[in-house]
Formats: sequence, C-alpha cells, structure tokens
Amino acid sequence: MSRFSEPQDPVFQQLNASLSFDRRLWPHDIAQSRAHARMLAAQQIIGEDDRDAILQGLDAVEAELVAGQFGFDAGDEDIHMAVERRLTEIAGPVGGKLHTARSRNDQVATDVVLFTRDAAGHATRAIDALVAALLDAAEAHLDWPLPGYTHLQRAQPVYLSHHLLAYVWMLQRDRARFVFAASQTAALPLGAGALAGVNFPTDRAAVAAELGFDSVVANSIDAVANRDFVLDYLGAAATCATHLSRLGAELVLWSSEEFGFVTLSDAWTSGSSIMPQKKNPDAAELLRAKAPRIVGHLAALHGVLHALPLTYNKDMQEDKEHLFDTVDTLDLCLASAAGMIRGARFDRERMSAAASDDLIAATDVADHLVKRGVPFRQCHGIVARLVRIAVDSGRSLGELTDEELTAASDELEPAQFRALLAQSSWLESKVSEGGTSLQRVREQLAAARAAHTPV
Amino acid sequence: MSRFSEPQDPVFQQLNASLSFDRRLWPHDIAQSRAHARMLAAQQIIGEDDRDAILQGLDAVEAELVAGQFGFDAGDEDIHMAVERRLTEIAGPVGGKLHTARSRNDQVATDVVLFTRDAAGHATRAIDALVAALLDAAEAHLDWPLPGYTHLQRAQPVYLSHHLLAYVWMLQRDRARFVFAASQTAALPLGAGALAGVNFPTDRAAVAAELGFDSVVANSIDAVANRDFVLDYLGAAATCATHLSRLGAELVLWSSEEFGFVTLSDAWTSGSSIMPQKKNPDAAELLRAKAPRIVGHLAALHGVLHALPLTYNKDMQEDKEHLFDTVDTLDLCLASAAGMIRGARFDRERMSAAASDDLIAATDVADHLVKRGVPFRQCHGIVARLVRIAVDSGRSLGELTDEELTAASDELEPAQFRALLAQSSWLESKVSEGGTSLQRVREQLAAARAAHTPV
Amino acid sequence: MSRFSEPQDPVFQQLNASLSFDRRLWPHDIAQSRAHARMLAAQQIIGEDDRDAILQGLDAVEAELVAGQFGFDAGDEDIHMAVERRLTEIAGPVGGKLHTARSRNDQVATDVVLFTRDAAGHATRAIDALVAALLDAAEAHLDWPLPGYTHLQRAQPVYLSHHLLAYVWMLQRDRARFVFAASQTAALPLGAGALAGVNFPTDRAAVAAELGFDSVVANSIDAVANRDFVLDYLGAAATCATHLSRLGAELVLWSSEEFGFVTLSDAWTSGSSIMPQKKNPDAAELLRAKAPRIVGHLAALHGVLHALPLTYNKDMQEDKEHLFDTVDTLDLCLASAAGMIRGARFDRERMSAAASDDLIAATDVADHLVKRGVPFRQCHGIVARLVRIAVDSGRSLGELTDEELTAASDELEPAQFRALLAQSSWLESKVSEGGTSLQRVREQLAAARAAHTPV
Amino acid sequence: MSRFSEPQDPVFQQLNASLSFDRRLWPHDIAQSRAHARMLAAQQIIGEDDRDAILQGLDAVEAELVAGQFGFDAGDEDIHMAVERRLTEIAGPVGGKLHTARSRNDQVATDVVLFTRDAAGHATRAIDALVAALLDAAEAHLDWPLPGYTHLQRAQPVYLSHHLLAYVWMLQRDRARFVFAASQTAALPLGAGALAGVNFPTDRAAVAAELGFDSVVANSIDAVANRDFVLDYLGAAATCATHLSRLGAELVLWSSEEFGFVTLSDAWTSGSSIMPQKKNPDAAELLRAKAPRIVGHLAALHGVLHALPLTYNKDMQEDKEHLFDTVDTLDLCLASAAGMIRGARFDRERMSAAASDDLIAATDVADHLVKRGVPFRQCHGIVARLVRIAVDSGRSLGELTDEELTAASDELEPAQFRALLAQSSWLESKVSEGGTSLQRVREQLAAARAAHTPV
Repeated sequence: MSRFSEPQDPVFQQLNASLSFDRRLWPHDIAQSRAHARMLAAQQIIGEDDRDAILQGLDAVEAELVAGQFGFDAGDEDIHMAVERRLTEIAGPVGGKLHTARSRNDQVATDVVLFTRDAAGHATRAIDALVAALLDAAEAHLDWPLPGYTHLQRAQPVYLSHHLLAYVWMLQRDRARFVFAASQTAALPLGAGALAGVNFPTDRAAVAAELGFDSVVANSIDAVANRDFVLDYLGAAATCATHLSRLGAELVLWSSEEFGFVTLSDAWTSGSSIMPQKKNPDAAELLRAKAPRIVGHLAALHGVLHALPLTYNKDMQEDKEHLFDTVDTLDLCLASAAGMIRGARFDRERMSAAASDDLIAATDVADHLVKRGVPFRQCHGIVARLVRIAVDSGRSLGELTDEELTAASDELEPAQFRALLAQSSWLESKVSEGGTSLQRVREQLAAARAAHTPV
Repeated sequence: MSRFSEPQDPVFQQLNASLSFDRRLWPHDIAQSRAHARMLAAQQIIGEDDRDAILQGLDAVEAELVAGQFGFDAGDEDIHMAVERRLTEIAGPVGGKLHTARSRNDQVATDVVLFTRDAAGHATRAIDALVAALLDAAEAHLDWPLPGYTHLQRAQPVYLSHHLLAYVWMLQRDRARFVFAASQTAALPLGAGALAGVNFPTDRAAVAAELGFDSVVANSIDAVANRDFVLDYLGAAATCATHLSRLGAELVLWSSEEFGFVTLSDAWTSGSSIMPQKKNPDAAELLRAKAPRIVGHLAALHGVLHALPLTYNKDMQEDKEHLFDTVDTLDLCLASAAGMIRGARFDRERMSAAASDDLIAATDVADHLVKRGVPFRQCHGIVARLVRIAVDSGRSLGELTDEELTAASDELEPAQFRALLAQSSWLESKVSEGGTSLQRVREQLAAARAAHTPV
Repeated sequence: MSRFSEPQDPVFQQLNASLSFDRRLWPHDIAQSRAHARMLAAQQIIGEDDRDAILQGLDAVEAELVAGQFGFDAGDEDIHMAVERRLTEIAGPVGGKLHTARSRNDQVATDVVLFTRDAAGHATRAIDALVAALLDAAEAHLDWPLPGYTHLQRAQPVYLSHHLLAYVWMLQRDRARFVFAASQTAALPLGAGALAGVNFPTDRAAVAAELGFDSVVANSIDAVANRDFVLDYLGAAATCATHLSRLGAELVLWSSEEFGFVTLSDAWTSGSSIMPQKKNPDAAELLRAKAPRIVGHLAALHGVLHALPLTYNKDMQEDKEHLFDTVDTLDLCLASAAGMIRGARFDRERMSAAASDDLIAATDVADHLVKRGVPFRQCHGIVARLVRIAVDSGRSLGELTDEELTAASDELEPAQFRALLAQSSWLESKVSEGGTSLQRVREQLAAARAAHTPV
Repeated sequence: MSRFSEPQDPVFQQLNASLSFDRRLWPHDIAQSRAHARMLAAQQIIGEDDRDAILQGLDAVEAELVAGQFGFDAGDEDIHMAVERRLTEIAGPVGGKLHTARSRNDQVATDVVLFTRDAAGHATRAIDALVAALLDAAEAHLDWPLPGYTHLQRAQPVYLSHHLLAYVWMLQRDRARFVFAASQTAALPLGAGALAGVNFPTDRAAVAAELGFDSVVANSIDAVANRDFVLDYLGAAATCATHLSRLGAELVLWSSEEFGFVTLSDAWTSGSSIMPQKKNPDAAELLRAKAPRIVGHLAALHGVLHALPLTYNKDMQEDKEHLFDTVDTLDLCLASAAGMIRGARFDRERMSAAASDDLIAATDVADHLVKRGVPFRQCHGIVARLVRIAVDSGRSLGELTDEELTAASDELEPAQFRALLAQSSWLESKVSEGGTSLQRVREQLAAARAAHTPV
C-alpha cells in the first residue's frame, strides 16, 4: 500500500517517466546491484541465501535484457524499478531485500557515474583513432605546400602535414579533458542512501572495489546532489565538438570548387535530389553542425542545476538525455572525422598553386630587410608600399621594376628580392621551433607519434 | 606607408577597437616584450644596445601605466599597438625592432594565456578562502540538526556541519578544475609568428623559462588558433558559479520567514526603497543570479570558435570580454560567499524544530522492520500505510494507537516504534561511511581540513 | 545510376540519416505532394492521368502510414525519399514525375513550416486551457490573503487570485508570441526549387492556397535558407517555459512543510523508493526543470545557423530535433501545469497566518504618515527605526509602547497606528489600478476573462 | 535611520551596485519622475508647490547630467537613488515626496521598458538603413551572374541582385520582430508599487499618456516581475545578429583569393602587424563573430529568470547589462554591415567565370528531358551518369561525345544538349515566381522597395 489514495495522472506519468531513455543504464544497474547484494551479505545485513537468490535472479533479468526479451510494464517508472520489479517476479519477495540500505537517489547517481566513466574512456579511444588517421595523413603529405590562412586570407605557406598536426594537438588536449572527466567519476556515490547515509553498517569500500572506483564519495549529501562529472564530460565533449566543427568547416571549404584542395570520397558525400551533378560534403557539414547541439546540452544542464537547493531534486532527471545524446553524437562525429580524413584525396597541384602567390612572401621580404639592420616596423612599411604598387597596377611582386624596388629602400637588392620569391625558401626559412620548415615538422610528427596512444 | 589608400571608417574603428578592454593585459604585454627582447639579443637577432634601449623604454612605459599616466591615442587599436607606439616615442626607431620575429597573433595569444594562468591561480586561492569559511562554520555547528531535503520536502535529519561540508567537496572539485585549466596554460605560444613560425633562429625555450611556462606550443598554427585554455577557465568558472548559485538559493530560502534557519548579517543585506521593514538577501540573490551570466559567456565563446577555419581569425578577439567579465564576476562571488557564510547567524531552535517532524523518521521505522527480517520493499509499504493513516487523520506518527501499529505489521512493537521516533537516534543511526552520524561527520571534517590549502 | 562509384560508409549513413526523427513530418509531406501534383497538372507540366496515378498512390501510402504498416527501407535517407520510393513502388515510374519542379530543399522547408504552423496553433490552445484553469482558480480563491514576496521576503499581503492572475497575463503574452510565430509561417517556400526557382511555369499561389498559406516566399534563395520561423517558435516556447518554471518553482516552494500553502493532488506527486512518508512534487519540479532544455534548443539552433553561407547547407537538418523535442516538451508542460493547478488544494489558514505578520504593514504605516504631510523618505526612516526596535527586542510592531511610538514621530498616533495593523485594511487600501484590493482584482478578473479564448 | 545596525561590506557594495551600468537610464528616470510628480499633484497626493519644487529640481538634475557634471556619490547604489539624493540636495526635503506611491520595483521596470522601447525603435531604423544599402546594391548589380551554392558547392547560377535581396527579406522579418518587441513595451508598469499596488488613488492612465504608453500593466505583481519585453528584444536581436553573421561569413568567403568575388573597401579592412601584404576583412569577421555574444545574452537572461519565484528578486538586476551590451553591439553591427555593403566592389568577371561552370546546368538538362516526357527521377539518373563520365575523364559536360550522350538516353539530342549549356538560358529559365530570371528579380526588387521604409 502506498501513502497515496489517487492514481497518477497519465500526463504526469508521461512527464515523469524516464524509462524510455534511462533503460540504457541497465548494465550498470545490474552491476551495482550485484555488488550491493554481495556487500549486504558480507556485512550480514542479508543472509547468504538471500544474496544467492538475488544474484541468480539478476542473472535471469540480465539474460532477458541482453536477449531483448525483457518485458517492460506500463507501470515501470524507470529502469531501476523495472529491474527490481522483474527481479521480484523471478526471485520472489527476497527481491524486495535488494533495496535495503539503498535509495534510488544513490542508485541513480551510481548508474550515471558508471555510464559517464565508460563514455569518457570510449571518447579517449575514439580520439586516439582519429589522431591515428591524422598522423597517417600528415606523414603522407609531409611536404605538400598550401597557403596558411589568417582571416581567410592567404598569409604564409605551410605544409599540409603541419596544418593537419594542428588538429592532432587540439585532440590531444581534448583527450586530456576526457581523462580529467574520468577522474571525476572515481568516487562511488552508492551507500549515501537518500541523502544522509543509511542505518546499516555497510562496507562502501568493498562495493567501490568491485565496481572499479578508487574511493567513496565523502559526503552523503554531495553524493546524491552532485552531477559535476556529467558537466565535466559535456564540457570536454563541447570543446572537442568545437574542434571538429573547425575541421568540418575546413573540409567543406576545401572541397568547394573555388578552393579545390580536397576531394572527399564518395563514401562520405551525398547527391542532390534535384541537381544531378552535385556531390555534397554532407558529412563534413554535419561535423560542423553538431557542436552547437553539444554546447546546448552543456548549457542546459548548467541551467537545470542553477539555483537548485540541496539535495536531490527531480530536476536532476534531466541530466540523462543531455548526456546520452552527447555521447552518441560525439561518437558518430569522431568516427566520421576519422573516416573522412582516411578517405580524403588532397590535390597537390591546386594547393601548391595557391601557395605560390608571391604576395605571401611579403613577410619574408620584410624579414630580409630586418637582417640588414632596418627596424622591423620600417621594413613592414616598405614592403606594404610595394604591395600597394603591385596591387594597384595589377602586377605580382615579382613584376615590380628594379627602379620601384630600390626607390622603396636602399637595402632592397632586386636580384635578392626576386630570389626570395621562390616558394620553397619561404617554407624552409621558418626554422623556429614549432614552425613549418620540413625539419621542424619532422620533429613535431615524431613528438606527436610519441604522444599518441595506438588504438 | 600602409598598403591602404583610404582611412578606416569611424564605425569600423569602434567595432574593431579592443583597447577599451584589452588594456588590462598590459602587465603581461610588457613582461613578454622584455623576455622577447632579451631572447632576440641572446640569439644575436638584435644587438645588445638595441635590447638595452628597448628594455629601458619598456621600463618607462610600464611606469606610465602603473601611474595611470599613460596617454592612449585615438589611433591605438589595441594595447599591443599602444605599447609599441609609446615605446618608439620614448626609445626612438629601435622600438620598431621589438616586433622582429613576433606577430600580434602569437603576442596576443601569449598575453591571454598569461592572464588566464593568473586568473586560474587566483580562483584557487579564492576557493580556498571560501572553503576555510565553510570549514569554520561546519566546526561551529557540528551537532546542530536540521532537516535534509529531497524535492524540497523534509526527508531525513542531518547536522548543519554535514550540509555545509557538502559545499566544501563541491568547491574542492572546482579547485581541481582550475588546476586543470592552469595546466592548459603551461605551453608558450610566442614564437609562432603569424602562424607558420618565423624566419629567425629564435630560442623559444628561453622565453618560456623566463615567463614561467613549462614548454612551448608544439605547432605554430595551433599556437595562434587555440583558445582552449579560455574555454577551460570558463568551464571551471561556470560549474563553480553553478555551485555558488545553489548556495545562494539556499541562503535566500533559509532566510525567508517561513524557513527562518538563518539570519544574514546586515553587512550582506539591503533595505527596500518603499517597505521599511524589509531586510533583503540581495547578496545571496546575486550569488544565485550570476551563474547564467558565466554559462552564457562559456556558450558564447564556444559559438565564436564554432566552424572557424584555421588559423587566426578576428572573431577570436571576442575571447577577452567573456574571459574578463567571468574573472571579475567569479572573484566577487567567491568573496561574497565567504563573507556571507562568516556573517551568517543560524537559528538552532528553528532548524531543530523542523528536524523534529516525526514523519521524517519513516525510513528508520522501515529499516527497523528490515532488521527483523521483513524485505525492505514490504517494510516500505507498511510504513507508507501508517503515514497515510496519520496524515489523513491529522496526527503525527507518534500518535498512532497500538492497535493501528500492530494491525499494520506483526513485527511492529509499539514501544520500540515510539522509541525510534526520538530524534537523536535518527541522526546517529546513519553510521555508514560519509553519513551524518556525528562520528562520521567528525571524520569527514578532519579529511576536509586535511585536503584544504590554507590561504 | 548515380554519379557516385562507391557506396556510403555505414557510419556516414548513421550520421546523415534523418528518417528516425523526420518521419513525423509525413502528414505534411503527403499534403504538399498532393497540392504539388495538382498544380503540376493544372499547369500542364504533367498530364492529368499522371496526376491521378500519383494522387491514388499517395492515398495508398498515406493509408499505410496511418495504419503503421508503412515499411521503411534501410536505404531511406529521409521521409521524403521514403514516401517517393514507396509511391513509385505502388504507382510505377509515374511516381518519379512527382519531383518535377521541386527539390528536397524547398520540400523540406515546406514540411517544416507546415509543422511549425500547426505546433504554434497547438501551443495557443494549450495556453488557453492553462489560462482557463488559472482563471477558475483565481475565481475560487478571490479573497484568500497570502503574503506577496519580494526577494522571497514577505513584503505586502495580496489575494491569491491576484497572484494567480499574474500568471494569466504572462501566458497571454506567450500566446501573442505564438501568434507572431505563426505569422512567420504564412508564406510558402515550395516552388523555390533547389535555390534559384525552377524551369517550369509553376503556379505557387495555387499551392499556397491549397495548403493554407497567405502568400509565397518572395525570394527562392531565402525560401530554402530560412529557418527563422523555427527560431520564432523556439523563442516563444523558451519564454513560455521560463514562465512555467517560475510557476513550478512556486508550487515546489509552497508545498514545502515550511510554507505549507498548497497540497498538490496525489495524481501529480510521487513517493520515494526509500522514504515511505515522502510525497514529492515531481511534476512541479519537472515543470521547473524543462525551461533550460528549451532555452538550450533555441541557443543551439542559433548556433547552427551562425555564419552559415547561403543557401541550403546540410547543417540545417539540425533544425528538426530541436523543434520536435521543444514541441513535445512544451505540450507536456502546459498540460501538466493545468492539471496541477486544477488539482491543487490551497491552505487558507496557513496563507492567512503568514499574511498576518504585522511587519508587512510597515509601508502602510509610512504611507499613513505621508498623508499627514511628512515626506515619504522621512516616513520610511521613522518606520524603519520602529522595525529595528521591534526586531531587536523580539516584539511585533503592535507590541511597541506608546512612548516608543511617539518618540519616533509626533505624527504617530498610537491608536491609529495599532488600527493600521489590522490585516484586511492593508489589502483593501491598495486601491490603485492593477492593485490587490478586492474591487481592483474583480475588475482584473473580468478583463482577463474577456481576453481569454475558451478552449 | 535605517533598520540596519551595521554598514554594508565593501565587497557586497561592489557586487550589489548597479550604478556603473544603470546610469544610462537617467533620461528615462527623469522623464518618469516628472510624469509621476505631475500625477501626484493632479490627484492631490502632493501639493502643487511640492510638484513645482520637484520639477524645478529635476530640471537642475537633468542639466547636470546632460552637462556631464552630475556628481555621483560613493553611496549611490543605483541611478534612481542618485537622482533622488541629488534632487533632495537641490530642492530640500520636498524631494523626499517624489517617492510617494512609488517603489524602486515599479520605477526600475518603467525605466527599462522605456529604454527597450527606444532601442527597438532604433533597431528598426538601423535595419531600414541597411536594407536601403542592400536595395541599392541589388539594383546596381541586377544582372551580374554568380553561382548559387548549396552545401558550398556550386549549384545553380543566380544574379547577385537575387542573392542580395535574400538578405533584404531576412532583415524585413527582423524588423517585424523588433516591432513585436516594441508592442510588448506598450503597457506602463509604474503605479504597481512594490508589488501590490499603492495606498493612494493614483491615476496611472495619466502617467501612461504622458510617457507614450498605450495602457497600464493590468496586474501589479506582473508589473514588477516581468522582463519579457527584454527577452523579446534580445530574441529579435539574436536572430538579426545571426542573419548578419551569415552576411559577414559570405563577405569573408567572397573576399578570399580563392573566391575573389568581392573587394572590401580599405575603410572596412585592416592590415597585419607582421605581414605587409595582408588586407584583412576584420569588420566582416566581427559581424560574423557577434551573433554568439547576443545569443549568449539571451540565454543568460532566460537563465536568470528560470525558476524565480514571484515577484521582484534582486536577480533581475542582471537584465540590464545583457540588454545594454546587446543594444550597443547590434547597433554597431547594423551600421557596419551597411557601410561594408556600400563600400564593396564586386568582381563581375570572377563571379561570371564561376557561374559558367557547365556542371551547374545539370538540372536544366534533366528538366529538358522531363519536358520530353521522361519522369524526373529517371532524368536525374541519366544526367548523373553523364556527370560521372565527364568527371571521371576530366572533361566538362560540353565535351562529351554524341555517342556518349545518346547512349545515356534516346531523348538526349546532342545539339540541344549543348545549346542548353549556354549560361544565360540557365538563369533566364528560372521563370517561377520568386526565381532568379531577370523579370522575376525585377518584380521582387519592386516589391522590396515598396516594403521598405526609407530612413
């Protein structure tokens, strides 16, 4: 008998029910119930017979869930109640002993923290796979020049390897974020009861050990009120997705006819329902488009927790859908990025032609003057004037006359100036650590390989 | 001479100028310029005389800035240009040599990373101060009972110390987030040039050492395109602010006449312009209200970086205002929280009375039956029935008759039942690790003190 | 045959496929296809036989969809392709003529705009139903006093009717927002083709008329690139949900033991898995919790559209899940709010006792002095002093002595002062338009009834 | 004397003070105070002498504010208190009568609603100015072809006028949003007092009339608790900024060397500190970058209002900074967009060359087959096959042989096929309403001019 005299309104049940989404927590729910039952018996809170009956019942429930034959009831509010209900059907009233010294509050926190821990681990492995694809691509295109852009204007030439390695380092930072998020899942909430601890001499450390936790949450209120670890996961995912959106945006841009730097494989592109010629970079566009979705999830969960008095409030049920959709979305995005990179065919000629625009040697010319003793700021002005003369007269820098050059600066020796405009030297003069000269990129690639965890 | 033939539109200058907000970066800008100048000379890229002239000039510029006597020009687009302009006025054309082997792209990244590193360090110390206030308050109210709430319904009694310690653990996690954020500021961007590295044999490690970095950014493109560390700071701040919003919300709630658990000091409250009796918890409300502001900054910066092709784009100038306002807001919030906690006067009587509601012993009664062998789920039903009888007839649980009790369950011995309803036993029976029994709270407080870094 | 030589990668198909969510657009897809086919025939672009075959085929497809017997294929990328595929299976190659003068770009825009129009209409009706519940509740509690709060401190007493009517006006504004959103769905995108218009002399006005649009989108590029109407719907929903979160928060607060102003019906509350006494306001908490979810959807769609070059980009596929979840969430929330209000039992005694706190007459005492000619700001000071004396000595205002009163101000006649502290006069003196005096509330209720559209 | 015995903590004052940002409300504060004083006298709540003294005092205060000579005090918490303090200094104790029948709660709501009304009006005019620039640009480039893009792939050619007009229609919708937002500022909050109405027989309609409101807020609680109108303004601004971000993104893209469709004027571009050749589209990038900032403000204010119990809470002070920064940002963005459009120099040759890519005639070829009776879906397949043959062999469609063409379809007459590939016909065949044929664009331009409100 319940303390309620009236049944729940069907609209309320619809609003309240979480089973449609929290059912995917079942493996964690079963795992924690096993550990909990074993601990209860070890502490003599339930008998060994009870424990064995419960464990056998849980095996049967798990088998049904694995086989997709578990029969959910209309009355199952959530996965925890569904499992306990079925357990009791199978094992009899002893099933009702499983909830001794446990509340749904610490139970659900434990399921979610287990899920998040797994998700963080999975994300690091998916990142490793994408990094592997990028490293291979960097190696395969070690000395392919293309323009580096600032403000989407050609700025200075770089090697494609160097450009791709920039993503590797972003992803390595993302990996560190997921490792941090995983560290925030290392303490077991179970054992906190509803909020105050429980009336039984439980052994939380034993449960923690069985479930792979490093420690137990130190404060029972915090144990049931805390969803920081979900925020940490979502935060890591949001930044990672933002990185992927930059990659997606570049793939879209580079596969435009105007850039023409890359052809995405048929396996990662779509046609048009009306325009037979179209080969659309849908996957790259979706890679780009998913970041705001994940950022939205992060902001929404912050919003849910905003101003929420302790301890557990029903609002916190909102954590799960934001988390689950983020996990699924990020998983697809990371796998898609790896697939696209592995299938991409870069166009050496188009990139090289773009990188040969002699305007982008302007900094090198200025630096040449610096080496002759002219303060950099003056050199900048001298070369800017040359650029203006060239642009205004529709010529390249290389087409300026000797007179124009020497008029700009005494230090500008025409022959040397024209020699400077030879492309390879522009790249190879970037000798500073982390720069795009081939030697530096080779060092960088080696360091990136060393930092990489093979999948 | 510039490559431009037309002056900038005044509206564009207004849109473009960052000086009004980036001027606070000047200490970092001066510091990096000093390190850069020393390195240029050590590498023989500039002469020692040039270096000395630059360093003296920078001293003079710094003195003006410290004294608030630095004259900004209408034409100063940003703090970097303002400092270089003034340096050249003071030191002469040699000032123009400072920008050798440096671009604003790596320069601004370096200023921002230095600022963020400082801000993260500052946040950890402000957290330590708030934790100290909470630890003292917990110690001072070790055994003061109040109801613990779930769903804002009285659930089970806890000690105020236990409740306050929940915030300590949240804040310790926030601290870990800021330490992580600081770790993401440990690599020096300077030396990346515009994006590709520079044409000079610079010594980035030397600059890094002087400025307190552990390493240099491995990829020059990444160095100028990366703002992850700002996201990391904002993410840490958003979660911390969300925690503070929960604290603020509880202080508002508890200082209502209906709860009456706390009286905030006059130093942290305001009056009303029209209602003479009002004493409003404005500080607590603002503590609550600031979280969405910081979450908004975080989401906005993700939005700015979304789909941005490499490398540097002007959009990234938007990083600073989001960061600065977050730093200032969080700083005020942490200090305010500490001040409010130190000044709060808790009302032992009101809290204790609320905690004495005998309905909140219901779990304990159920657990009592469990210990007599009844499966928990049945116990829950038995007690729920008793609650319903009591509530329907307007009585407390303690007022139920012997007949009603034994009718509910054979195992329910009336005398024991009534003994159970004595408050202190409810708290003291929560003996599980992390629970609210006094012994457990004492252990927890000791652990929290041990984990605390005194300010 | 397609222009592609390689099949799509299964991961890409997963990322790309929208069928799992866009299938609910089918009624709109069928409706627009019927109108399109009729127009094509009327304009002699297809024959009448073709039209009839297509219409019969669409009837058959619709019947399968209604009956839940439509067989989706693994290869069906979206609902549009699924319907066309099935149509062609049923009607033969003539089915391939339906896509004449149409692109998926204008087709999907049309489906979404139709869906949004329906959703906006539905929202207005759901609001009307909630307003009806609030109006009835206001009428039933016309003269029940409770404290009005500012800063969650008791400020001045109001009638419950007055408080409930505040929500009515919020909701009427929400209604206006949905009416505005609906007005933004009044122009037909169909006929824009992929982006440039089509090569056939179509009659868009005829299609618009059949589908209930006021006009056609004036620019074919805008027709396929525009999702403003979704933003308008989401914006209206976000503000409405924020209003509901305030209502939910108040129901949670008022059903706490400390406030005790309301008892929610059993039909809208839940028990606890561990605490048998608990009756939790889960529905009210979820009402509160859903606003950030919808705000997150709004922000995410803005993020998706951010910086997106014209015209259609695949990113825009992200519009649908944000829209659909918002529609479903808001629908549940509005219905739940109405149900909770209709089932709520207010506690006249608790509210009245709280409203009788004589401190909240302080403004009235000050205004009394104003009427005797003392400037308001001085009156405020006089009464504030009295409040302080009372609070410091643990007395109510009514317990102050004659000496204390006259010492505070010559104008303060003790007898009148004490008469002022009689509760009903405090409410009834709020005679200003829109105030809480009974006469004013009666006028307001009549106006609110007049503004209400009965469901 | 206040009811407080202890001064406010300086940190609290910093957290609490709003003067640094709310001072810009002063014109509205003065205006409402004048109207309020006149009404109080007309209703004989204060004397005519008092009114005159107050009005003269307000004139003096206003003069100081206009002249920038108003002396703010350290103790001025907000602009309302500063004005009243100064008024009393100037006019004597009678200044204390101004706050009769008014609370800061309704006062601040009134200031903010007045500010928002003005801001919405200003936004519509700024939009009108931008629309004027776009209309002129459309007219000047009526028949300049460029590729229309979907998925950033060339899809079908359009005229530049048609493309620019797409933005006109977006902006007209934005205008409608601001008109709606203005409609939400049409009811006067003043007169609601703290929350319950006031103890005086005020004449709110008179105040409303003087301040240009259509009506008074019907419910005093709603009057002080409502900030919907700010959300409406922010929502309109967010969508408008998102449109501008699309325009900014296209200007960035089109001014890349790869696209080369537009050259932005020197007045709206910047150079680089290191690369002398750079001409960066900073203004266009910032136009792109500002949308997330405004979306962040919108989300943050929703967050602030989330779950806030009625009536006024200090949290609502957060409304102002979000509003003010949005107003300033949008203002700059709209003016910048107009300036950039007016200064942009489009490159007819580059655009036309891009539009001549014969692959983008593919739809036209398919439609040609449709007109010969082949179902569209088959036509699509036939042309897709031709595209594949051409792409695989590195030829254009026009270079396919007669054999290849007739092998693809009997209906494909080689001569007609090649005639179809002449560019102008592709554009001119888009005869459907809203399409890109010149006649249709002329109609559209006329309609857009008719819909435009000249500035």
